Amino acid sequence: MSWDRLVRFVPVGNDNKVLIGEPVDAAIDVGAAVRNGQAVQVRVYSGNSVLDEGEPTGETVTIGRILSPLTQNEVGTIRCIGLNYKKHAEEAKMAIPEIPTLFLKPATSLADPWPAPTIIPKHTIATDSADYEAELAVVIGKDAKNVSETEALDYVLGYTASNDVSSRAAQFAQSQWCYSKGFDGACPIGPVLVSKKLIPDVGALKLRGLKNGKVVQESPLTDLIFSVPQIVSFLSQGTTLPKGTVIVTGTPAGVGFARKPQELLHDGDEFVVEILPYIGSLYNVFKNEE
Amino acid sequence: MSWDRLVRFVPVGNDNKVLIGEPVDAAIDVGAAVRNGQAVQVRVYSGNSVLDEGEPTGETVTIGRILSPLTQNEVGTIRCIGLNYKKHAEEAKMAIPEIPTLFLKPATSLADPWPAPTIIPKHTIATDSADYEAELAVVIGKDAKNVSETEALDYVLGYTASNDVSSRAAQFAQSQWCYSKGFDGACPIGPVLVSKKLIPDVGALKLRGLKNGKVVQESPLTDLIFSVPQIVSFLSQGTTLPKGTVIVTGTPAGVGFARKPQELLHDGDEFVVEILPYIGSLYNVFKNEE
Repeated sequence: MSWDRLVRFVPVGNDNKVLIGEPVDAAIDVGAAVRNGQAVQVRVYSGNSVLDEGEPTGETVTIGRILSPLTQNEVGTIRCIGLNYKKHAEEAKMAIPEIPTLFLKPATSLADPWPAPTIIPKHTIATDSADYEAELAVVIGKDAKNVSETEALDYVLGYTASNDVSSRAAQFAQSQWCYSKGFDGACPIGPVLVSKKLIPDVGALKLRGLKNGKVVQESPLTDLIFSVPQIVSFLSQGTTLPKGTVIVTGTPAGVGFARKPQELLHDGDEFVVEILPYIGSLYNVFKNEE
Repeated sequence: MSWDRLVRFVPVGNDNKVLIGEPVDAAIDVGAAVRNGQAVQVRVYSGNSVLDEGEPTGETVTIGRILSPLTQNEVGTIRCIGLNYKKHAEEAKMAIPEIPTLFLKPATSLADPWPAPTIIPKHTIATDSADYEAELAVVIGKDAKNVSETEALDYVLGYTASNDVSSRAAQFAQSQWCYSKGFDGACPIGPVLVSKKLIPDVGALKLRGLKNGKVVQESPLTDLIFSVPQIVSFLSQGTTLPKGTVIVTGTPAGVGFARKPQELLHDGDEFVVEILPYIGSLYNVFKNEE
């Protein structure tokens, strides 16, 4: 693999074309730059998927609209780890788990970064209770089954940012979390997929969540209760994790429902998941379903 | 739609071919007949999917090996309703839910009926705790989002049988059910997909589960707490249920872990989910992972 960071995007001036490529500026926070109207240059690759990137074509283009690095078909069922930061388990008044807590989101929950809006569903039990959860996402690069913790990173392609959007009224109305976290658009990821070459240990990363510009979540990735190799190995026992699978690894303390006063997401709110270095910022603006 | 019942299968004498078609005998329990070595005749359709069945070709062939009516790609993320029969909620010592309880299985859990073996994973927390759950499965026939209960059945293609195979040790080790019910092969469905034309009201159906020939679960479908229209409407709020989505609707009382003494599934055990009339029997034989 020749790339360090890949993005999937629509180029300026051709709204029907989807390309993948590597940002020319190796240090740029692509999500923040696009959100701020900067022209971001990308070296185009010949492939049409980050799972089959091809070779550099020699062409350089400007991003028009940024997309999730993977498609719904590529990610399939999304794996999510709950309660993976000690202080978040405490604020949610849940026990610290002894094994990873797994729930799933359907592929249809996958969403693009800004400018695509993230929709707050109008269903009565979900209305007015949308909440954010800033998380590191792991992308699986080849089919994994029954892999050990030692070999787990061999199956990881790279990392990106994600927001485990949750409808708290629905979540607290039943024991299982899949309904409240599975609405269309409840899993924005991206925009930059960073090769594991650049991130040999996710403990070097720092995660923040910003609601309308204010920092509401902040944690080093050293605070994960279960590490990426532990999670990948655990989830692969008896279970195939197909190439392209996305695993979101849990959120630190500071979620909206647990704050005093509560800070839930409403029509027009902007949320940013920032993971530095390399990954950068995932921007989303929330809109009520019409 | 011209068919009443469809099966997907490999014909006798050509193990590389997958066909779909309608059993010639409108009354036959295809699953039981195949398991008992009877030659089952099928009128072949031109399509290669029950979601795009084409037209009868005029050819009649004999089933060699029976398959799940849909593929993993077609079903995507599988929707499962928990605690949807009052007596099962009671035996599991759980409250009767006020809204449907949703959990999900990944597409990789979809499995074929006998003769394909159903694998009991060797992962330590799942070993020796495999259990059965006989259930009615609903197949969605066109993309559904925000549909009302009144229009919900317009989006249903038909019905089949399913077994929500569960690893109880893993289930009781965490609050969420997705890990313990998501192993490869944990969702056999089939073999017959029955058009909703034949089943205008699932309350006319009777469900049984048989372990090694002994009846261990038995319930009329009138006992569902949430009806099929209620479930489809609820799950579609804010969420696209793509064409091909499978919804398993919950299991009645009599599961293995709640029996005295317990009756879990071990290497070599056979389990049958029988739904009459029309759907017939889903056979599976369980094998330990090697």
